[in-house]
Amino acid sequence: MGSPETALALTLSARQASDFELLSNGGFAPLEGFMGAADWRSVCERMRLESGEIWSIPITLATDLEASAGDVVELSAPNGKRLGRLEVSEVFDRDVDTEAELVYRTTDDEHPGVAAIRREGTRCLAGPIEAVALPDHEKAFARRYLTPEESRKAFADRGWKRIVAFQTRNPIHRAHEYLTKAALEVSDGLFLHPLIGETKEGDIPADVRMRCYEILMERYYHPERVILGVNPAKMHYAGPREAVLHAIIRRNYGCTHFIVGRDHAGVGDYYGTYDAQRIFDDIDIGELGIEPLFFEHTFWCQDCEGMASDKTCPHPQESHLFLSGTKVREMLSRGETPPHEFTREEVAAILMDAYGKESATDGR
Amino acid sequence: MGSPETALALTLSARQASDFELLSNGGFAPLEGFMGAADWRSVCERMRLESGEIWSIPITLATDLEASAGDVVELSAPNGKRLGRLEVSEVFDRDVDTEAELVYRTTDDEHPGVAAIRREGTRCLAGPIEAVALPDHEKAFARRYLTPEESRKAFADRGWKRIVAFQTRNPIHRAHEYLTKAALEVSDGLFLHPLIGETKEGDIPADVRMRCYEILMERYYHPERVILGVNPAKMHYAGPREAVLHAIIRRNYGCTHFIVGRDHAGVGDYYGTYDAQRIFDDIDIGELGIEPLFFEHTFWCQDCEGMASDKTCPHPQESHLFLSGTKVREMLSRGETPPHEFTREEVAAILMDAYGKESATDGR
Repeated sequence: MGSPETALALTLSARQASDFELLSNGGFAPLEGFMGAADWRSVCERMRLESGEIWSIPITLATDLEASAGDVVELSAPNGKRLGRLEVSEVFDRDVDTEAELVYRTTDDEHPGVAAIRREGTRCLAGPIEAVALPDHEKAFARRYLTPEESRKAFADRGWKRIVAFQTRNPIHRAHEYLTKAALEVSDGLFLHPLIGETKEGDIPADVRMRCYEILMERYYHPERVILGVNPAKMHYAGPREAVLHAIIRRNYGCTHFIVGRDHAGVGDYYGTYDAQRIFDDIDIGELGIEPLFFEHTFWCQDCEGMASDKTCPHPQESHLFLSGTKVREMLSRGETPPHEFTREEVAAILMDAYGKESATDGR
Repeated sequence: MGSPETALALTLSARQASDFELLSNGGFAPLEGFMGAADWRSVCERMRLESGEIWSIPITLATDLEASAGDVVELSAPNGKRLGRLEVSEVFDRDVDTEAELVYRTTDDEHPGVAAIRREGTRCLAGPIEAVALPDHEKAFARRYLTPEESRKAFADRGWKRIVAFQTRNPIHRAHEYLTKAALEVSDGLFLHPLIGETKEGDIPADVRMRCYEILMERYYHPERVILGVNPAKMHYAGPREAVLHAIIRRNYGCTHFIVGRDHAGVGDYYGTYDAQRIFDDIDIGELGIEPLFFEHTFWCQDCEGMASDKTCPHPQESHLFLSGTKVREMLSRGETPPHEFTREEVAAILMDAYGKESATDGR
């Protein structure tokens, strides 16, 4: 404080502040700071930290700030809030193409995760962080904010031993509600843990999604069996590698099981439909510390008279209600309610409201 | 063969033949014969074999046949079919009241399992068996007969690693279909494994049940994800202790998970609704070798617009379709189809047919 070493200052991007937050609150345990060259390479090449622990995506701080090992950098949030400091232990250059190829399985700039690391650049500051505060969150998120320590306590207070976590960056339609409830049937409790960090353009904003989650909590989930928390992570769209990171984060929040659906954390056609499930075949689940639960395509089936999946329903596709994302967005924009077998009418109302406003903003 | 030692012969009861069958086909592994005094006591008192392995219900051969250690007894099925032989290693008296108290948690003669062991008596022949044949089964069962070795192969051939087993002695209504499918959603395959051994009077006969299972296999379960086999075991109605035995049997058939619902293997009011789940709290699941999946009360909920449970549905009871067993039997006897949200119409038709015939036989 005030000493020459603290003269360096860096305002983190929203994406970096998200990493800072998970490093600070224990969501990224065992990490205690931004990775150095050895961890970066080890994670890229063998999906493990240099120490041997499973870790799937580098957590690095790329910046042009001139700093050297031994420096201390004051860190602040995009809104200027002071967050804490970084003790620089190392300055190194990462090879973005290597990271893209090994972690994202593509070097294509059209991939939003690859584009993001290219924008960030190659020069990274590494070292442990010390937090004095966490980034601010909007009220809608803040009231659902739980640190890993708090969620663990909430689970323990309820006597839950088997807790399944659900990651989402989308509204919860009936297909998702179904798989969370199927997983809950064989668990003690469900942790709805939507991601509220940066997502790509075109994804539904987190505040709109939160309204959808809240109404489902009020009307369709059992209050004694479901906890809604928010995950401050950003999206990498790294598919399989990100499914593993998502599982690790939820392990740290105290969950025992983690739902992995089709094309988890995927984007476009970069990953096979079940690649994010197959990656767990080569992982020792005991070592990982959380067990994945794999789901296939889920839908309403007229012949089953209920929600089902490719695993549980033997009926032909004609019996299934299928709406593409594009079709649903079109309906919502036009103020048409999608079928109640596709989404709860309360959720549809929220999305129609949001899409209507967006259309209005678009000048339509 | 023909030597003086083989002069002894015993025709097994249907219940004993059921035990013989599971001892022979590996369903009762690691048992290789009928238990002696040390195992009997150890199982009653500490739910373990003398060797330390978990075992929950004594498998003993009570008979008045005069025999001594060293004798060989030829065993045959109730229909006279020669099954194999018992090498008598020990003759001992079991204390039926002790077994009733410790295993069945009651000495009440009204309990069908307790009544059965009282009828069998105290004097037991113990020793390893050697099988030359298995008991015959009706064609409807025989075509679905799989030994543990065969079911393991069937699972392996399909590449299933996570296999959930469902025990039942009842028709599968939608509540049961729902829980089997919820369990299947988080597994690779489902093993429907109805019990076809002796059940108590008033239970629906196995042949009628088989017709219900077959039509569900044809119309509502996915052929690539579900295997129907038959379990030759008899019912003990021992609730918690029998839930453990049912799990052990399915472990031997190659399953990794086992569904335990409300009042599993219970009868009357002898056991608390969730006693058969709680018993697993004190069992090392790794040692047991199969993981129980616990389910609560399931039903159709109008507000959920689907099947749900006390865990997953927050709506009031008025929204739930509930029919007592008595009510359903009355409807079926009168030829009234229960609501399609309660049971599939194809199942209702089979049961109405069976109940109609039964009523006709009753002279009505």
